[in-house]
Amino acid sequence: MRLRKRPGAIEILRERPEIVPPRPKELRGRWAGKQSLHVELGTGKGQFLTEMAEKHPAVSFIGVEKIESVLSYAVERNDQQDNLRFIHGDVAELGDYFADGEVDRIYLNFTDPWPKTRHEKRRLTYPTFLRLYERLLSPTGDIHFKTDNEDFFTYSVMYFSQNGYHLRNLTLDLHENEPEDNVRTEYEQKFAERGQRIFRVEAYLPIS
Amino acid sequence: MRLRKRPGAIEILRERPEIVPPRPKELRGRWAGKQSLHVELGTGKGQFLTEMAEKHPAVSFIGVEKIESVLSYAVERNDQQDNLRFIHGDVAELGDYFADGEVDRIYLNFTDPWPKTRHEKRRLTYPTFLRLYERLLSPTGDIHFKTDNEDFFTYSVMYFSQNGYHLRNLTLDLHENEPEDNVRTEYEQKFAERGQRIFRVEAYLPIS
Repeated sequence: MRLRKRPGAIEILRERPEIVPPRPKELRGRWAGKQSLHVELGTGKGQFLTEMAEKHPAVSFIGVEKIESVLSYAVERNDQQDNLRFIHGDVAELGDYFADGEVDRIYLNFTDPWPKTRHEKRRLTYPTFLRLYERLLSPTGDIHFKTDNEDFFTYSVMYFSQNGYHLRNLTLDLHENEPEDNVRTEYEQKFAERGQRIFRVEAYLPIS
Repeated sequence: MRLRKRPGAIEILRERPEIVPPRPKELRGRWAGKQSLHVELGTGKGQFLTEMAEKHPAVSFIGVEKIESVLSYAVERNDQQDNLRFIHGDVAELGDYFADGEVDRIYLNFTDPWPKTRHEKRRLTYPTFLRLYERLLSPTGDIHFKTDNEDFFTYSVMYFSQNGYHLRNLTLDLHENEPEDNVRTEYEQKFAERGQRIFRVEAYLPIS
């Protein structure tokens, strides 16, 4: 998501250290205690994660977002959920924020498809990322992936399978029979209104 | 494929024992010698496999079909390819026709999707079949799967991945950028004319 730079965004993040920890790497391994830890990568303005945090008070949610302008909106939106925090940082550094096996679920919602082959390595389902997620996920952990981009979806399904992930709840048209517990992101809402297909799959590692 | 019973079909099969071996189980392990062996399950009237056999003279092709009426048309079509034979038999008995590791490629083209859950076990990508194929496939073997049925496709992708197969060349719209080497089946031709999507994927077992 690319937005105009928002004046004062960085100050909004700094004013809420309980929601946006200023030194997130120091919390590595200690984010959720005994609660489940769910992490959204590229959390944008936080609509999805805010609603998830309301619906699942026993789960600890973290949204990772590198662009301070959009993250500032997510922070402002969170005026009451103490189970929702944000990391102002880069997915490439995920291994510095989370310990091996600490994460129970990763959400990839409409992340940048990087359609050009020369940008392939930036896709958040590229094998280098999948290996990183494998390290960080708990033994029963999984990845919930949604996109409107057909090519990104088919690539991701192949990447998942070729990296040892198993797939479940795969759909090529999420809204055709929208599950009751589906929480729509801002993008998803717009795409749905235009009648575009939403692709979704869950990927997990078999217990070896 | 369900067709009216064709009078004389069984005689057509019997008249061509070099093309339809009367005791196929006796050829187990000896179908192709040093050639690659490609097997289509549910070969119908044989349009796909006849064209494949013409295009790939160095590959040995076998079509398995249990319905003698449709198989008789496939046999009649084959008036010159000596690298194309048929088994009048049932996929459930595949392990009696082929030895472990004997098959280099399995084609599943528009096989019955068996949409009802109570018929799930009859789908040719159901785990019991996938385990059978795993036994019969050579170490570098693979499965080429095409269907027009979206649900059957998504189920199959999940079945493949959950049974240890890896996926490649996955497309949700084969004819959008039809590969030069794609050979259309009779069904595929009809579906394409109606503008229906054809789904395709290749599944293989990682070398362990």
